[in-house]
Amino acid sequence: MTATPPVSLRWSGDADGHLDVLDQTRLPARLEWISCRDVDRVIEAIQSLRVRGAPAIGIAGAYGLVVAAGEAVQSGLAPDAARAHVLARGEALACARPTAVNLRWAVERALDTIVPLPADTPASALAARLLAEARAIHDEDRDLCAAIGRHGSGILPEGGILTHCNTGALATGGIGTALGVIITAWDEGKRLEVFADETRPLLQGARLTAWELVQRGIPVTVLVDSAAAHLLATGRIAACIVGADRITACGDTANKIGTYALALLARAHGVPFFVAAPSSTFDLSIDSGADIPIEERAAAEVLAPLGVTAAPEGARAFNPAFDITPAALITALITERGVIQPVTAAGIAALLR
Amino acid sequence: MTATPPVSLRWSGDADGHLDVLDQTRLPARLEWISCRDVDRVIEAIQSLRVRGAPAIGIAGAYGLVVAAGEAVQSGLAPDAARAHVLARGEALACARPTAVNLRWAVERALDTIVPLPADTPASALAARLLAEARAIHDEDRDLCAAIGRHGSGILPEGGILTHCNTGALATGGIGTALGVIITAWDEGKRLEVFADETRPLLQGARLTAWELVQRGIPVTVLVDSAAAHLLATGRIAACIVGADRITACGDTANKIGTYALALLARAHGVPFFVAAPSSTFDLSIDSGADIPIEERAAAEVLAPLGVTAAPEGARAFNPAFDITPAALITALITERGVIQPVTAAGIAALLR
Repeated sequence: MTATPPVSLRWSGDADGHLDVLDQTRLPARLEWISCRDVDRVIEAIQSLRVRGAPAIGIAGAYGLVVAAGEAVQSGLAPDAARAHVLARGEALACARPTAVNLRWAVERALDTIVPLPADTPASALAARLLAEARAIHDEDRDLCAAIGRHGSGILPEGGILTHCNTGALATGGIGTALGVIITAWDEGKRLEVFADETRPLLQGARLTAWELVQRGIPVTVLVDSAAAHLLATGRIAACIVGADRITACGDTANKIGTYALALLARAHGVPFFVAAPSSTFDLSIDSGADIPIEERAAAEVLAPLGVTAAPEGARAFNPAFDITPAALITALITERGVIQPVTAAGIAALLR
Repeated sequence: MTATPPVSLRWSGDADGHLDVLDQTRLPARLEWISCRDVDRVIEAIQSLRVRGAPAIGIAGAYGLVVAAGEAVQSGLAPDAARAHVLARGEALACARPTAVNLRWAVERALDTIVPLPADTPASALAARLLAEARAIHDEDRDLCAAIGRHGSGILPEGGILTHCNTGALATGGIGTALGVIITAWDEGKRLEVFADETRPLLQGARLTAWELVQRGIPVTVLVDSAAAHLLATGRIAACIVGADRITACGDTANKIGTYALALLARAHGVPFFVAAPSSTFDLSIDSGADIPIEERAAAEVLAPLGVTAAPEGARAFNPAFDITPAALITALITERGVIQPVTAAGIAALLR
């Protein structure tokens, strides 16, 4: 247990250092850090959800490029080969998970900064430039989270707040997106009662959101995902708030499986449904949520919760990691630039312009 | 693994015998039978969900009365003391779980059969009479399941069928209620693709429904409960079908937590939502679902899935075992006497008259 607020990752040392990732698959039972000194380790950490959350994997991807440049230094690659290596590893990092747009956004943003460098720039200088940009992305995300928290707190009602998955410090470079809004509102003295969906299959709500809130001394009540409708029917929930992995030009939102269900249930009970995310989550190249690729993950996540076999041999699994919530079900989008309410393509375009 | 169809319980021997219960908390990993030779053991088996499912716990309760009479025989109680003992243990059995109405219904039905017996009837004769009635209830439930299956198969469309919790042989004395409908339709040659919600917190869908279907050679796909909305959005589901623990005079239905959510999601996608249950599930003394007591179960079921701690120390849990689905969300009620569609108080009264 840490006394300081939780963090998901940190860079150790200078441009020849490495990326440390808090292994979230072990939380809350164990606080274990993984040292990523090669790109394959970074990709494994992203794909195995040791680091997860759209903003956090973007930051991990950017630091992963520094690791790639470090590989080029270690291998004694000439400048052109070093640059080619970084670009190739960058593509592999960007593809590590398909649904969140922040990962590719962060990797491409960092890669763009080495484009203007002379062709004979050595690998070590590429690493230094990439580290500066990764740190900038990391620092900016901290500020984005704070701004999202302020904007969101302004519209969050007092009372019961229901959230899904984990959208806190473990998912970002700062206090979080949706959870950052809750934390900000709590710190501002709003009277909240926080409810966390456990978020099967990987239980990020029970394991991570509850852990972050307990760490911060904020009371939290966990429920199975399917109990949300009953909880809403009791009238105890004033608002639902979730994060996002990708938001289209018209506001359709990809987020953790179960988000769409929760949005439908909130609508059926007349409860506002908020989505909080940085502007890097928007993918204006896509209009409809139907065009967002949905990652399908391993059957074992469903059939063997926490590694313990539940289902019989012979049973199959349906395991989409994300679903799509249509814009029409979202009361407001909360970004670092302000709140989009109602959620319309024009409102999104105006705020992101 | 059995080659024969699964059963949830069986009576061993004559009136001086005992109740064997298949311990469903161990399934599908282990097939363990528990011998219940005293009433406390029967109550423990019901409360710990070693035997569960509204019809099955009704049958267990009826056999539990035979065990109670056996206790009176063992203790050498005089006729009046023996009868008082059976009545008192019957009340304890009827109260073992609060939500399902079949339990009290079965216990009271069996107890009613000893009321006309002379005051000097010895405990052994009470046991014999109670065993005859428990066997009748058990046999009748087998027939009820078959009739529900036939009526339900008549209205079940071909295509994807989504069910929740376990409503099969393990939950009843026969092939089941909702799952019995699916099995009947499959056996009649309907082209079905069966999807089973895993049904947190106790995973009856993943553990029991999937096991029953695999045993019968019917392919089954398991999903986390919160993925149902996404599955419905894909258009692959032709109907949802679930069981019931109690149905009011107007059709409001108490069933496993998550049923209400599924009914709302089905409605949002224009998919029919069927409830299958024997007429003993109806409680005509209650109009509104709001008057049905909802059992709250231990926090550990939520915080430690399959016994493995997931949430951090300090997190609370909200763990209602059931929720209420309003009649308006139910396309049809399928009973052994026929189908009630649309679901109205008049339709229910007419069918049950």
